[in-house]
Amino acid sequence: MLPFDMIEYQNRLRKTKQRMAESGIEVLLVTDPANMNYLTGYDGWSFYVHQMLIIIIDEPQPIWIGRYMDANGAKATTWIYEDNIIAYPDYYVHSSVYHPMDFVAEILRQIGQGNRYIGVEMDSYYFTAKAFQRLQSNLPNATFKDGDLLVNYVRMIKSEQELEYMGYAAKIAEQAMYKGVDSIRAGNRECDVAANIYYQMITGTEEHGGDYPAIVPLLPSGENTSAPHITWSERRYKEGEAVTVELAGCYKRYHVPLARTVSIGKPTQQLQDIEHVVVEGINEVLSNVQPGMTCGDIENIWRQSIKKHGYEKEARLGYSVGLNYPPDWGEHTASIRMGDPTVLQPNMTFHLIPALWFDDHGIEISETFRVTEEGCKTFTNYPRELIVKDPFSINQHGGKIS
Amino acid sequence: MLPFDMIEYQNRLRKTKQRMAESGIEVLLVTDPANMNYLTGYDGWSFYVHQMLIIIIDEPQPIWIGRYMDANGAKATTWIYEDNIIAYPDYYVHSSVYHPMDFVAEILRQIGQGNRYIGVEMDSYYFTAKAFQRLQSNLPNATFKDGDLLVNYVRMIKSEQELEYMGYAAKIAEQAMYKGVDSIRAGNRECDVAANIYYQMITGTEEHGGDYPAIVPLLPSGENTSAPHITWSERRYKEGEAVTVELAGCYKRYHVPLARTVSIGKPTQQLQDIEHVVVEGINEVLSNVQPGMTCGDIENIWRQSIKKHGYEKEARLGYSVGLNYPPDWGEHTASIRMGDPTVLQPNMTFHLIPALWFDDHGIEISETFRVTEEGCKTFTNYPRELIVKDPFSINQHGGKIS
Repeated sequence: MLPFDMIEYQNRLRKTKQRMAESGIEVLLVTDPANMNYLTGYDGWSFYVHQMLIIIIDEPQPIWIGRYMDANGAKATTWIYEDNIIAYPDYYVHSSVYHPMDFVAEILRQIGQGNRYIGVEMDSYYFTAKAFQRLQSNLPNATFKDGDLLVNYVRMIKSEQELEYMGYAAKIAEQAMYKGVDSIRAGNRECDVAANIYYQMITGTEEHGGDYPAIVPLLPSGENTSAPHITWSERRYKEGEAVTVELAGCYKRYHVPLARTVSIGKPTQQLQDIEHVVVEGINEVLSNVQPGMTCGDIENIWRQSIKKHGYEKEARLGYSVGLNYPPDWGEHTASIRMGDPTVLQPNMTFHLIPALWFDDHGIEISETFRVTEEGCKTFTNYPRELIVKDPFSINQHGGKIS
Repeated sequence: MLPFDMIEYQNRLRKTKQRMAESGIEVLLVTDPANMNYLTGYDGWSFYVHQMLIIIIDEPQPIWIGRYMDANGAKATTWIYEDNIIAYPDYYVHSSVYHPMDFVAEILRQIGQGNRYIGVEMDSYYFTAKAFQRLQSNLPNATFKDGDLLVNYVRMIKSEQELEYMGYAAKIAEQAMYKGVDSIRAGNRECDVAANIYYQMITGTEEHGGDYPAIVPLLPSGENTSAPHITWSERRYKEGEAVTVELAGCYKRYHVPLARTVSIGKPTQQLQDIEHVVVEGINEVLSNVQPGMTCGDIENIWRQSIKKHGYEKEARLGYSVGLNYPPDWGEHTASIRMGDPTVLQPNMTFHLIPALWFDDHGIEISETFRVTEEGCKTFTNYPRELIVKDPFSINQHGGKIS
């Protein structure tokens, strides 16, 4: 049932412990669900309650701590010995009296870890201010250190198996984009387009079933193409409007995102103008990426490219991507932006999304790529352009883009 | 574009400020995306970066602070004046140097709120340990108080408009359940069932388009029916297996969850035995709920009911439900469990999910209900039983349950 072999998990754990040692962390409390999955295989929609892995630098097995009803899920999806799966009673859940971190602190004391250097993921979504407060007050002899992103940095360089999974996710992303674009027409509801995209993302391909992406399809349309994180409504599309589609294919929690802007009928002059700027910029970036460059260098290629046309961009160009859970498929490590010092290495993977947003419109054309030995390679193969849906085309069916 | 009229938003804000006054909080930093939506309408998948509303007890307008690229979304979806929508530059996002809470603290100081009693949502998913640490170190003259769940408690009693939206969500939940159950058959892949459910959840009904639920469909099957938060895989169903389907219809972020267990072919004796216990228990609960009772009283009815058959249940029976964002559709206020002192009032809404889980099997039959003046009323109308899919039935199509 495990998506990776034990050697790969052991490698991940070894690298994590190496970083712990470098950071002076003896015990790492891993609360990011992607990191929990990465190290042990744990998979379940249980991150809405407090849960964690405890990684002890001088113990071979991680300890999983979670809610009583999720212990069976931990047994079913991880390689951890059952003795190391520890569950807290249900009365700790969403209680004003009991907090799961009181239980965790008690376990840490019982196993003799209460007075060590303990790393916590300080800025991880599911490690709340109260979680930290309770741990601190229950473990007065521990020294807490910031272990934020420690495991995330281990995740940056993908293995062959991970890249294979991302390849399957890419195929799913392409098909979901075709399905979505096909159903974007004047008169259709936004929610119907979202439903089509979802169907395709989840059913996947015949060979590889889809998993839920960490972000829902983003579908801003009309003026809202200036607002990239708007989802969908019941509104019907109108002739002449633009729609942005940002989605990801997901396979065994590995993501390949893909974004395109679609014009329903003839695109505005504005949109045609910026299309060329964006596509040229992406092409210049992709043809120049090389291992050894920094993420900041990539941004500089883009910046010079669009500057020729008189544009500049506020937001970052992209980010490291791969394994994840809601609410984000980004890894929160490297960003493709000015000054980012991350040195590109083969098998790092990025979502390059050099979108441009203005007051009442915007454009998104994105590619996910991996760094290779010589340059880079995109995961998906989808027309890199502003997609124009011709209302007079007879054949609007079957994924054909007019 | 706002889903509620201004009077309703003003009422919500007034009740929030009343609770702030009672708790000695002058400035409330609202980071829970459901609370942000509840007070202002703000809607977007932007909660993967730090963002918040600032509610100042003696100021009429909330302030929205978020990422630069999300300010347009805030303008498009909220009733807040544009002057009160404040954006931080993109270099604050996922940076090891800059933190959005440094920006927030600076704004609070600039507007003269840096030395007040400031409430923060201490156990809210997106209020991280680091977020709190940065606020504390940047605002040495502020006194921080725990404002966790302050707005959530205001959300508990639903308005007529909210109940109407939940009614639409209920219809979507029923149809998604029919669609899912219809496609559960030996030989089908789990991901294909999930895709069908998703399609129906998102397309919604002809009148009311669906929104994404805060939890994905949960589809544990076989032995994993003992593990309620497992999602789906590419595995094909086998004759004789059981499958649990837990899903929600969602309309404008309002949820109505619904769970059923499905047997592919003849159910095991175990499953038949516990079906009767669960259904009898649910019926006893639903026919006895009355305003004035506590959530603990409800649990007691259930406990006595299943005790007759020699069962007891570890997990809570249910929870307050309604408006939400991932990762949970529960409101984290009242739980239906032993000793919960919440007094039922008309128009409170609960998901009653008195599931039973054992080592290698489990059953879930749930109902979402609202408390009425005289008792309670369920939102959905779906056969309250173990669903048996007869492999010999000719008509497996069209949502007909054999």
